Amino acid sequence: MILYSMPSSGNSYKVRLLLALLGRAVPCIDIEYGTEPLAQAKAEGRLPFGKAPVLVLEDGTALAESNAILCYLGEGSLFMPQDTVARAQILSWMFWEQNQHEGVIAVRAALRCYPHRSHEATPARMDELLERGHALMAIMEARLGAHDWLVGDTVSLADICLFAYTHSAGDRGGFDMARFPAINEWLARIQALNGFEALS
Amino acid sequence: MILYSMPSSGNSYKVRLLLALLGRAVPCIDIEYGTEPLAQAKAEGRLPFGKAPVLVLEDGTALAESNAILCYLGEGSLFMPQDTVARAQILSWMFWEQNQHEGVIAVRAALRCYPHRSHEATPARMDELLERGHALMAIMEARLGAHDWLVGDTVSLADICLFAYTHSAGDRGGFDMARFPAINEWLARIQALNGFEALS
Repeated sequence: MILYSMPSSGNSYKVRLLLALLGRAVPCIDIEYGTEPLAQAKAEGRLPFGKAPVLVLEDGTALAESNAILCYLGEGSLFMPQDTVARAQILSWMFWEQNQHEGVIAVRAALRCYPHRSHEATPARMDELLERGHALMAIMEARLGAHDWLVGDTVSLADICLFAYTHSAGDRGGFDMARFPAINEWLARIQALNGFEALS
Repeated sequence: MILYSMPSSGNSYKVRLLLALLGRAVPCIDIEYGTEPLAQAKAEGRLPFGKAPVLVLEDGTALAESNAILCYLGEGSLFMPQDTVARAQILSWMFWEQNQHEGVIAVRAALRCYPHRSHEATPARMDELLERGHALMAIMEARLGAHDWLVGDTVSLADICLFAYTHSAGDRGGFDMARFPAINEWLARIQALNGFEALS
């Protein structure tokens, strides 16, 4: 297997984090935004939907979408249980992450941190994203105020998935994380997992 | 089981469509936008992420996110094969649908069709969504120009998932579907499936 990974992207980071937690080493090709390796990977048709990450499987299949990659790599591990209801709940958080959370939390961070997107960062847009992001994280806070993990009583792919952009929501996204004590404790629980690697 | 479903929404429709194709009858509570039943379902905490559809399982679990519900209901059927690579590719299309396709194709339709969102339908926004939507559907067209189905050689959850908002992209979304002959043939293949039910 080979992983095409964008070093600065949370979607790529969540795959690298799961591999680290699983103790698996997979060769990685860095395709950072605006660099030649990204242009080359696109030109060679390596990225089915035009984005990172992409995991190239043993049979040559180029598997796109960070959360589909998490499911592929996590199957059979403690991060994806066999119980059908727990599996469905894990997928529920993961689809919510791609449909709601990422489009607000990650986008606000991108508008603040990537110079090529700063023209989109109008005060009205940033205020709207701030309000929506706080409302979305309140949903996580409600769950984590009563439970250690997003699904069941153990860490799962749902936690790895949501950690990626939530852990940098304060520094990069400018969200007020002091509002979310249960999220902050959950972030610390993930950071304490055996094999944890930070976003470098 | 009970399904909370928004009749006009593609995300709810995809669940009803899968149930019809599986020949399964599940009691349905209609929660249309702006109606009392939706307000009541929210007030009673029936919608974990505040949106439809939600499937209430036998054990009382309220399962949110249309694609997670598809995975739960489709497991063990011909719509979700056992092959690990095929499963990963199906999830890849489904995450792409929630992260990219829905946020463009469904949103442009909503801005055209829902009066309460018409103030968002500025010419610049509509033009941008039109261009992005055509680019996204070109990805589907490339696959479907060479294959009957999105994954493998048989219908799967990926096709049910993407059908929901693609079949109305012309009428509701205002996209130029004449550009996509392979998508149109694929839509007709799904409409010819045994048990198919249209969005009413």
